[in-house]
This record gives sequence, C-alpha cells and structure tokens, in this order.
Amino acid sequence: MAVYTQVSDDSLQEFLSRYALGTALSFKGIAEGIQNSNYYLETTEGRFILTLFEKYVSEDELPFFIGLKQYLAKTGFPCPEPIIANDGNAIQTLEGRKAVIISFLEGLSPKRPTVAQCKNLGAGLARMHLAAKDFPGKRVDALGPQSWIELWANHANEADAIQPGLTALMQQDIDELSKADLLSLPLPEGTIHADLFPDNAFFIGEEFTGMIDFYFACTGQLAYDLAICINAWAFEDDPLRNGDGLQYNFSKGAALIKGYQSVRPLEPAEHEALPLLARGAAIRFFLTRLIDWSATPEGALVMPHNPLDYAGRLAFHRKVTSAEGYGA
Amino acid sequence: MAVYTQVSDDSLQEFLSRYALGTALSFKGIAEGIQNSNYYLETTEGRFILTLFEKYVSEDELPFFIGLKQYLAKTGFPCPEPIIANDGNAIQTLEGRKAVIISFLEGLSPKRPTVAQCKNLGAGLARMHLAAKDFPGKRVDALGPQSWIELWANHANEADAIQPGLTALMQQDIDELSKADLLSLPLPEGTIHADLFPDNAFFIGEEFTGMIDFYFACTGQLAYDLAICINAWAFEDDPLRNGDGLQYNFSKGAALIKGYQSVRPLEPAEHEALPLLARGAAIRFFLTRLIDWSATPEGALVMPHNPLDYAGRLAFHRKVTSAEGYGA
Repeated sequence: MAVYTQVSDDSLQEFLSRYALGTALSFKGIAEGIQNSNYYLETTEGRFILTLFEKYVSEDELPFFIGLKQYLAKTGFPCPEPIIANDGNAIQTLEGRKAVIISFLEGLSPKRPTVAQCKNLGAGLARMHLAAKDFPGKRVDALGPQSWIELWANHANEADAIQPGLTALMQQDIDELSKADLLSLPLPEGTIHADLFPDNAFFIGEEFTGMIDFYFACTGQLAYDLAICINAWAFEDDPLRNGDGLQYNFSKGAALIKGYQSVRPLEPAEHEALPLLARGAAIRFFLTRLIDWSATPEGALVMPHNPLDYAGRLAFHRKVTSAEGYGA
Repeated sequence: MAVYTQVSDDSLQEFLSRYALGTALSFKGIAEGIQNSNYYLETTEGRFILTLFEKYVSEDELPFFIGLKQYLAKTGFPCPEPIIANDGNAIQTLEGRKAVIISFLEGLSPKRPTVAQCKNLGAGLARMHLAAKDFPGKRVDALGPQSWIELWANHANEADAIQPGLTALMQQDIDELSKADLLSLPLPEGTIHADLFPDNAFFIGEEFTGMIDFYFACTGQLAYDLAICINAWAFEDDPLRNGDGLQYNFSKGAALIKGYQSVRPLEPAEHEALPLLARGAAIRFFLTRLIDWSATPEGALVMPHNPLDYAGRLAFHRKVTSAEGYGA
C-alpha cells in the first residue's frame, strides 16, 4: 500500500500542463510499489502511472533508474516508459517531491505464480539482461555483498529476539559467504533488476507482459539476479503443512532457470556459482527485512515482511551443493 | 486507503468467469472508499471497479445500496452501475466476502472544491434526489437524529479529553436539536446519499461527472442531504489564519444551494429548516468522528478525521439564524 503524498487539484493541473498529455479524466491512489506514492492517471491522451518519490529513493540516483526504463522501453522490452515533459526532462517536481509519469502497463501480478509463469518470468529476466546489455548507466548495489557484514554487525543481536539461535545460524552464513567473496567470482555482469518479486512482474494468463519498479536496479552479476528470482518465485508455503516452513518448489525453480536459459544460457561459472548466489540473495533480503522488522513498533497497522521467511530459505540453501539442487 | 482483502489469482479468475466480462488485463488495489476493499479491474470488455465489502457494510443492507445504484444508473444519473453476473445477481461472494463489480466512472475528486464545482455538485445532488424519486427501496438512517442521544450518552465523557469544555457545548447542541425534533418537521423525504463528501463526487474540470459510494444512503429528508453537503463542501481552513479554525466559505455555500435550487427549488419549510438541519448534520459527523477517534489507539498509522473539525462547524451553525446565513 503506498500513497503517502497527497496531490492538490491545482498542483496536478499545473503538473499536467508541463506535458502534452491533455487533461485529467481520472486520478486514483493505487497500492503498487512500497517506497513511492503511485497514482493511476487517465488523461484525454491515455492511461499512465504517476509516481512521486518518497525519501527512500535518492534523487541523485533517479536519472539512472529513469534512464534505464527509457533505454529498455526503447528496445521494445515491456516496462513502463517514462514520459518526457515539454522541457525535455522525464524527471519533474510535484508537491515538493521528484515525480515522473510513466506509461501504463497491462497485466496482473501473480499472488502464487504458476510453473508456466515462473518459466516465462525467467525468460523475461534474461530478455531484460540482454536488452540492457549496452545501457551505459552504472550503479553500485548499495545492498550488495560488500554491505552485508556491516548491516549484520549493526543488527545481529536482533535476530535472536525473532527466533532463539538465529543469530548464530546467520553468523555462519555471513562468515561463509564472506569467505567465498561473491564479488570476486568471474561472472558476467550487467544491469540487473535486483528486486524482481512477483509484485514487480505482470502477466496476462501465463504470458509475461512486463516488469516494473526498477528502483533497486544496479550493476551486478547477471546470475545473482536469477538467484534473487529463485528466492522470490520458487519458495512457497506447503498448504499441507499448515504454514510449518517454506518449501522449495522444485518444478517452479527448474522452470524459472529453464526459461532464463532459453534466452540466455548460463555460463559454466554461473552454473557453478548458483548455490552461493542463491544463499547470498537470501542473506540480502533477510538483512533488510530484519532491519525493517526491528524498526517497526509493535501494533503498527502495516507490518513489514517477516525476516524468518528468509531464514527458512537459507536453511534450504545451506543443503544445496550444486545448481542441480535447484533444478538447473 | 482501503485494500483490506487480498484476492488470490485463482479466486479472481473463478470470480470473473461468473460474468460476461472477458479476461483480466489489470487489477490494482485503489485508495478509494474507506470501508471496503476496492480494486481497479480492467478486462477485455472494459474498465471496472471491484468492491469487496468488509464488516462495515451489513450484508442485509447490500441489496438496498446496490439496487439504488442500479436504479439511478438506469435513469441516466452518473453513478457506477452494478454489473449483473451470469446468475442474474449483481451481489456475489469473493474471498468469503460479498462483492460487486461496478462500472468505472471517469472524473476526479476535488481536494479543495472550487465555487463552480460546489454549484455543480448542488445541481448533481438535486438531480440524484429527482432521479431516485420513485425508487421503491427504503432504509432507516442508522445515524439519523433518533440515534444521536444514545451515541452521545455513550461517548459524552470523551469530548472533554479532546478539548476541555467541549462536552458542555455539545450537550447544549444535542439538547436543542432533540427539542427541535428534526424528524417531526414537515419536509419532503426521499432517498438521500447522506455522505456526499468531496471524495465521493467526481468532476472533470468544473463539470460534475458522477457520484460514488452510496453505502450510507437511506430514506430521509432531502434538505438534510443538502445540509450535509453544506458541512462537507463549504467549510475550509483559512490559509491566512494558519489553521486557526475553519471558516464558512460563503461563496461556496451559496453556490451549492443555488446549484441545488436550479434543479429542485427548496420548499419554504426546507428553507426555514436549513440552519437546524445543518447543525444536525454537523452533530451526526461529530459523533461518528468522536467514536472513531476514541477507538483509535495512539500511534496508529492511519488516524481518523479529527472530530474538532465538526466542533468548529457547530460553532458557526450556532450563530446562524436563517437560511440566508448560508447564502440561500
């Protein structure tokens, strides 16, 4: 749920006057994205999404994110296309915040992706990697492996409060991943989405129709992006076990990797590194969820994701010794 | 903000199969209405709103609300039209809740209505009253004058906690309104919206394009509906006074009443009763806001409307001795 900034009637009218988009016919706050305010905006020229950037997205980094979407959209990749205002800039200011209008993308985010959707998502991710191949923008992953030791050091003591014994378990993961030094692995790099959860992908039926929310995109190892998707798409609660732990859905994970490889086959080094990358990706999301969880007061109406979901994934990853363990 | 109930992929697909609306192309939670879950739903057949009814709306009363919208839409009045499912019913069940699909209405809810919008809103309200003239449904206003004494008795002690002295002031209003016995006044009755705040009305530019959210609609005095609008549309913070109290915007109030009368002239008894009705309407919203306010824990992320806004309106109403005081 994400409508933080209210837009006044006058502000909206003035804002729209900076574009060749006609006049507003509809304007509704929508529950999309969790870091920005998003509005469904319909004008006499079509349907759009208006995004206002809250404090979570750095103004300095906006040109990278917006430039990437422009670049991808121009290659024909299905992602929202930033609309250029009359002054030549896609990034404007509205209600004291940076704001953009992007094109409206059809499709629905799956709540519980099917095997076919996982396969098509994998292919979509690989298409994005290829489409962004010559994108000149660079951005360091602020939540990449180099950040984990410090993030963990600042919050390690909070893990045991969530589940006794978790601090020691996580310490072992952090130590082993540090030793493996993911960033030193000889893996192909490029522009990655880095947050491709089901709510950031659209489908019509089983068909992948687009990717949204590039606000964690960065320069990184391509296979790490796939490893993030393995964590985000292929684990699920076993309905027969009444919520007793997450299960790796092998069919979904295998389909995801197969779909990816149907567009961009993994190099041998990527194939070999997959278990380490999957474990690293789980650490990255565990850490940010741990931080959000600890920062949220008891009784808050909007609860963040439970970090234990990622502790559950890590328990699986620890046992996987090769990419075949994920279905590759 | 109002997306409480999540709809699974399978549930949505099964739900849509009950209609002749094709397949889903987009489905987004929207921040519209405060009592129900609302989704923007686009299908191969068009754009719609899907509403799931939360506990706030009684299932027994749904046929009245939905029937009213069907009736009004058939007369050509601009309101969402409930879509009939293949089984002949507009009211269905989804995720364990009653649910309807209604047609999508273009237009924007004004944050700070203009004088012209107030005039057109008044005309729109009168059009609704005439359009619903022969609607056979009846519903007692659960928050009408007969309910105020008991609501107040249960919460009177909470008013002083909000502002010292408020309990005594309100007691006087309640006593005087009880004595005046609004329901005994010989005023024309019919179906009223009873909650026509700016977020329940749509405009394109200055033109009124529709009315939504009929979930407080009931049988009542037509002029009371106008009195609610006077409270909801014609009071505003004076920007020059730094939030120091609400002001009655005489131009907006006069325009609202003039617009109403351009379609349905007030009878002399309605004209005479307007100050009492306006005061009563302010009491009604003060009381429900007082209850919501007291029921909300400190630190909650979503704060209810401050009841003091209505205490401010009551301070104005106490001084008005005739409809002319509102610009009638």
